[in-house]
Amino acid sequence: MLGRGIWSSVRQGLSRVLSRNVGGWASGEGKKMDIAGIYPPVTTPFTATAEVDYGKLEENLHKLGTFPFRGFVVQGSNGEFPFLTSIERLEVVSRVRQAMPKDKLLLAGSGCESTQATVEMTVSMAQVGADAAIVVTPCFYRGRMNSAALIHHYTKVADLAPIPVVLYSVPANTGLDLPVDAVVTLSQHPNIVGLKDSGGDVTRMGLIVHKTRRQDFQVLAGSAGFLLASYAVGAVGGVCALANVLGAQVCQLERLCLTGQWEDAQKLQHRLIEPNTAVTRRFGIPGLKKTMDWFGYYGGPCRAPLQELSPSDEEALRMDFTSNGWL
Amino acid sequence: MLGRGIWSSVRQGLSRVLSRNVGGWASGEGKKMDIAGIYPPVTTPFTATAEVDYGKLEENLHKLGTFPFRGFVVQGSNGEFPFLTSIERLEVVSRVRQAMPKDKLLLAGSGCESTQATVEMTVSMAQVGADAAIVVTPCFYRGRMNSAALIHHYTKVADLAPIPVVLYSVPANTGLDLPVDAVVTLSQHPNIVGLKDSGGDVTRMGLIVHKTRRQDFQVLAGSAGFLLASYAVGAVGGVCALANVLGAQVCQLERLCLTGQWEDAQKLQHRLIEPNTAVTRRFGIPGLKKTMDWFGYYGGPCRAPLQELSPSDEEALRMDFTSNGWL
Amino acid sequence: MLGRGIWSSVRQGLSRVLSRNVGGWASGEGKKMDIAGIYPPVTTPFTATAEVDYGKLEENLHKLGTFPFRGFVVQGSNGEFPFLTSIERLEVVSRVRQAMPKDKLLLAGSGCESTQATVEMTVSMAQVGADAAIVVTPCFYRGRMNSAALIHHYTKVADLAPIPVVLYSVPANTGLDLPVDAVVTLSQHPNIVGLKDSGGDVTRMGLIVHKTRRQDFQVLAGSAGFLLASYAVGAVGGVCALANVLGAQVCQLERLCLTGQWEDAQKLQHRLIEPNTAVTRRFGIPGLKKTMDWFGYYGGPCRAPLQELSPSDEEALRMDFTSNGWL
Amino acid sequence: MLGRGIWSSVRQGLSRVLSRNVGGWASGEGKKMDIAGIYPPVTTPFTATAEVDYGKLEENLHKLGTFPFRGFVVQGSNGEFPFLTSIERLEVVSRVRQAMPKDKLLLAGSGCESTQATVEMTVSMAQVGADAAIVVTPCFYRGRMNSAALIHHYTKVADLAPIPVVLYSVPANTGLDLPVDAVVTLSQHPNIVGLKDSGGDVTRMGLIVHKTRRQDFQVLAGSAGFLLASYAVGAVGGVCALANVLGAQVCQLERLCLTGQWEDAQKLQHRLIEPNTAVTRRFGIPGLKKTMDWFGYYGGPCRAPLQELSPSDEEALRMDFTSNGWL
Repeated sequence: MLGRGIWSSVRQGLSRVLSRNVGGWASGEGKKMDIAGIYPPVTTPFTATAEVDYGKLEENLHKLGTFPFRGFVVQGSNGEFPFLTSIERLEVVSRVRQAMPKDKLLLAGSGCESTQATVEMTVSMAQVGADAAIVVTPCFYRGRMNSAALIHHYTKVADLAPIPVVLYSVPANTGLDLPVDAVVTLSQHPNIVGLKDSGGDVTRMGLIVHKTRRQDFQVLAGSAGFLLASYAVGAVGGVCALANVLGAQVCQLERLCLTGQWEDAQKLQHRLIEPNTAVTRRFGIPGLKKTMDWFGYYGGPCRAPLQELSPSDEEALRMDFTSNGWL
Repeated sequence: MLGRGIWSSVRQGLSRVLSRNVGGWASGEGKKMDIAGIYPPVTTPFTATAEVDYGKLEENLHKLGTFPFRGFVVQGSNGEFPFLTSIERLEVVSRVRQAMPKDKLLLAGSGCESTQATVEMTVSMAQVGADAAIVVTPCFYRGRMNSAALIHHYTKVADLAPIPVVLYSVPANTGLDLPVDAVVTLSQHPNIVGLKDSGGDVTRMGLIVHKTRRQDFQVLAGSAGFLLASYAVGAVGGVCALANVLGAQVCQLERLCLTGQWEDAQKLQHRLIEPNTAVTRRFGIPGLKKTMDWFGYYGGPCRAPLQELSPSDEEALRMDFTSNGWL
Repeated sequence: MLGRGIWSSVRQGLSRVLSRNVGGWASGEGKKMDIAGIYPPVTTPFTATAEVDYGKLEENLHKLGTFPFRGFVVQGSNGEFPFLTSIERLEVVSRVRQAMPKDKLLLAGSGCESTQATVEMTVSMAQVGADAAIVVTPCFYRGRMNSAALIHHYTKVADLAPIPVVLYSVPANTGLDLPVDAVVTLSQHPNIVGLKDSGGDVTRMGLIVHKTRRQDFQVLAGSAGFLLASYAVGAVGGVCALANVLGAQVCQLERLCLTGQWEDAQKLQHRLIEPNTAVTRRFGIPGLKKTMDWFGYYGGPCRAPLQELSPSDEEALRMDFTSNGWL
Repeated sequence: MLGRGIWSSVRQGLSRVLSRNVGGWASGEGKKMDIAGIYPPVTTPFTATAEVDYGKLEENLHKLGTFPFRGFVVQGSNGEFPFLTSIERLEVVSRVRQAMPKDKLLLAGSGCESTQATVEMTVSMAQVGADAAIVVTPCFYRGRMNSAALIHHYTKVADLAPIPVVLYSVPANTGLDLPVDAVVTLSQHPNIVGLKDSGGDVTRMGLIVHKTRRQDFQVLAGSAGFLLASYAVGAVGGVCALANVLGAQVCQLERLCLTGQWEDAQKLQHRLIEPNTAVTRRFGIPGLKKTMDWFGYYGGPCRAPLQELSPSDEEALRMDFTSNGWL
C-alpha cells in the first residue's frame, strides 16, 4: 500500500526536479553533477511476514546518517529490488529521502529489463526524490545485449530522465559487463554522469577513466574490496555494501586515499577484503543483513527465495570479521 | 489497458480451476497431468509503437493451430515476458486461451524473481486460463540460488498453485542450471509435473529421466536442436522456438521419433540444427521474428532494448534456412 | 629407459607403415580408414614408485582384449600422457601393440603443443605400431587458437603423418572447443578420418555429422555418458573411459543402438550415466583407477600432482556404481 | 643441438648452486631471496625456419640490459616454452645467463605437468644459471587440481629445488587460479619466495599480501595493465610483457609508484593499458613480437600453431600504440 508519505514526497520531488531543470543538463550550460564519495547501498528491511519495514528502514538511515557518506544508493543489488513491487520501490526511495540528511545525495536504482519501463521508473524515482538514477544493464537477453543495444537503451533513458543517470555494471548478478566502448560513447551524453562498476577489474576501470578523461564523467567502485585500487586508477568513490556495517572504516579508507596516505590506506584496505567478500560474493545479502544485526542495525530476513545462512555459514561469516579485528 | 476479454477470461479460468481442483492434485488420487508433445513458445507481437498487437497474436495462433501441437507455451523466454507489464502478461495469456483450439494445452510462464510474486502470477495465470505454469528459475541472485533455495521456492509455488507446475531451466538466459538433485527432490511434489530443460546437455537430461523414473514426472526439451537426442534419452516432447516457423517439420520429427523411424528422424534433425540455432542462440528473438515474417506469420519488431538484425545478420539468418532447404 | 621391446616394435611399425603407404591415403585411391566402434582409453599403470608398470599394462590389455572392442586408445586424456616422457609415451604404445589382439585398432594420442612436435610424435607413434593418431587440440595459447590456427596445425600434421589422423576436442581439459567450421574444413583432408568429441554437446555433434556428410568422415563420442544420444545423431562409436571397467556393458549399449533396440538401449544408458560421470568429470583418473581395482584390473596410483581419492570421495564413487547395480 | 655454451653454463651453474646452498634456505638461517622489481618476460626468437635464433636472443638481451630492470624472466608464457624441447629450454636460459648483466636476476620458468618433471627441470634450470624458478600451475587435469594437489606439487618442487621457487598463476592460459588458501600455506615454505599473479584481480592480490604478511613472501603483478594498482595493494614488482618494448616506461611507472608520485603514476599507467592489452590478451605473442620489430628488437615469427597477425589486426595493434603516443 502506498501511504501518504509517498504523495507528499512526489510533490516535493517534482518541485525539486523542476527547479533542477532550470539550468539543468538539457540547457548544456553547466557541469554535470559531481557524484564523488562513498555510498552505502541501503538494504530493504522486512518484517517476519516479509512486509517492507519502513520504520526499521528509517532507523537504519538515522544511524547511517552520522557517517561522512556522500549519500545513499537505494535499490542497488543489495536492496533486493527484484523482489519489490514498483510501488514498494518508490515508497522505499521516498522514505529514504525523508529520513536521510538533506545535504546528501540519493541515488536510486531504476533499471528494468525494458527500455520503456526503465524510463518510467526513472521518472518516478525523480518524482519521489532521487537526485540521480543508477541504471543496471538489462540482462535476461544478454546474448543480444551488445554495445549497440546498450547504447540505444541508455541513450533513451538518459534523454528522457529528469535527473542524471549513472551507468551500472554488475556482472556477478547480470552475467554481463557493460563494454568499454559503450561506456566511452555514453560518457558523452550530457545527462550521463558516471559509472558504478562492480566487476572488480581495475585494468578496465583505469582504461575507462583514461578514455573518458575529456568528458565530465566519474567512476565509482562497486565494492569495498577494490576501493583503494580504484582510487589509485582514478575512481572518485565507491558504492560499498560493507559501508552498511563498517561505515566509519570505509570513509576512513576514502580519506586516506584522498590525502595520499597510501601506506595506511593499504593496511586498512587489507583488513576490509575478507569482511567485504563475506557480505557480498560469499554470503550475499543474507550475510550482509546478518552482519547488520551484529553491528546495531536492523538486518532481518530477506524475501524468498533468498534463504537464511546456515549455522556453519554464519560461523564462517563471523570469522571473516573477527580475524580482521572488527568483531 | 486491460480489455473486457481478460475479465471474462478470468471468470472462465476460475471455473476451470475450480472444476479441476475437484479431485485435483491436492487429493492425491489421480495421476499428474500428461504434458507430452510439441509446443511452440509463442512470441508477443508488437505494433510499430511497441504496443502489444493482440490482433496479430490471434492471427498467428490461428495459423499455428493447424499443426498437431500438444499446446502452446506463452511467456516463455521467446515471449519477451520480462518486457511486459503484469497486466500485459495476463492479457496475452487470456487472448491465447481464446484464440487457440480447445483441445490443446496452454502452458504459461509465471516465473518472477521473488517467491511471493511467482505465486501470485501463477494464481493469476490459472485465472486467465492457463492449464499449467512454466516457472523459470529466479536468477538475479544466482550466487545464492543453491538447491536448498530453489527447492524452497518451487515447493512454495507448487503448494499454492491451482494448476500444475513445470520447472524451467534455461541457463543461456539465467546463467543458472537447476541442479539435478533439486529436480529429483521436486519431482516428488504432487503438483510438479515436469521440467523444461533448455540447456542442451542430454547426459543431464538422461540422468534426470533415470532418477525420476519412479515419479510421475516428464521432461521436455527446450529447443529443437537436440529434440531427437532428447527423445532418445527419454524426454517426451519439446518446447521449440523453431516450431513457430517450421511447425510441420518439428511435429514430423516428433512422429518419426515416437514411431522409431530413427534414420529418417536423424536426417530431418540434421537439417533443423542450423535453422534452430539461428532463431535461438545466434540471432535470438529478433531472428525468430524476422523468420516468422518470411514464413507468413507476423513477427514484427521487438521491444527495446532488443534491436533489429543488421542486414548482414539477416543475410546469415536466411542462409541458415536456405542451405538446409527450408527457404 | 627404452627396452628392447620398443626397437623391435619400431621395426615392425615401420614395415607396417610402409606397407600401408602403398596405396595409402596419399594416392587418393581408396576410402579412408573406418574407425567405427568402441574403444577404452587405456590407463597407464604405475608402480608404487611411479614407474610405468608395463607388466600390469599387459595384464590389463589381456583382460580388455576379451571384449568386442574395435580397438584401444592409448595416450588419451585418461592415459596421463602429459605426465609421461616422450620415450614412455612410445614405449607404452609399443607394449600395447604387442599385448593387444592383432585384429583390433590401436589409436595413439600424439598431440603436443607445437605443430612440429606433434608431427614428430605422430611419425614415431606410427613407427611403434599405432594404426591412427588421435591429436588433441593445442591449448596453452588458447586465446590465439582460432579456426585458422587450428586448421593450419591439423593440416600440417595430417600432411606429414604416415597414419590417419583423428581430431580430438576435449574442452574439459583444454578449455577449447575445436570449432565446427574448422572440423568441416579439415574433414576434407584425405588423411583426416574423424573426430573424437568429448564435449557432450550433441547438437554440435549432429551438426558436424550433417555438414561432413559428403566427406568420408566419422564422429566418435568421447564419453559413455552421451553414447546413446551420439549414435542417435549419427556418431559411429565412442572412446569411453567407462569401458575400462564396464566393457561388456558399453559394448552391449553399442549393439543395442546399432540394432535399433532403443528402449533397452535407453535403460542401459541411464544406468551408465552416474558411473561414467564418477570416473570422468567427478573423480577423474584417480576415480577411474580406483574403480579398476574393484573390477579386477590394475588401477594403482596416478603420477603426481594427481592425488588419491579421499575416503569420502571413494565412498561416493562406490555409491555411483552400487546405486546403479554394478557393484 | 646443445652447444658448448650450455655445458660451461652447467658447470658455472652448479658452482653457483653449491655456493648458494652453503647457508642456503635449508639451513633456515637467512631471509628469503628478494625478488622486488620489474622483469620483462623474454620472448624466444626464431629464424624463418623455426630454429631458435640464439644470436637474436643475445642482441635483444643486450638492448634490454640497458634498462633498470631487476632481472629477466625466461620461459614464462611469453617465451613459447610449451613449443621448446627440454634442451632448447635449458639452452635459452643458459644463453640469457651469459648475455645479461651479472647483477640482475634470472628467473626461469620450469613448470611441467608432472611433479617429477617439474623437479627435474627446476634442478636443470639451476644448473644452467637460473637464480630462481617460476613454476606455473599444472593444468591439463584442472578438474583435479584443487588446493591439496597444488600444495603437494609445489611443496615437493620447493623441497627439492636448489634455487628459490616463485609460484605462477596465469588463468588466461591455464584455466586455473591458484587458490588463495594454497598460496597462504605455500608461503610458509622456506624455499617459496613469492607469487607471480597474472590474473589481474587486485582484490585477490591484496588479500594474498595481507594473509602472507607474517611470511617473507612477495607478490609480483603478471602484467603492466594493473601494475599501479598492484603496487597500491602491496605488490613489489611486475613481470610485464610490455617491458619488452616499453622498458623505460614500465620502469618509470615502478619508480613513480615507489616514490609515491601517484598522480603521475596514474597518468602513465593509463597510457599503458591499451598497449599492454594489445601485446597480451588481445593479440598474444604474435602481437608482442610484431611490436618488438617496430621498437628495434628482433621479434620475428612464432612457432606454429601460433599464426602471424592479419593486416587488419596489425593495424589495430599499431593504433593501440599510436593513440597513446608511443608510436
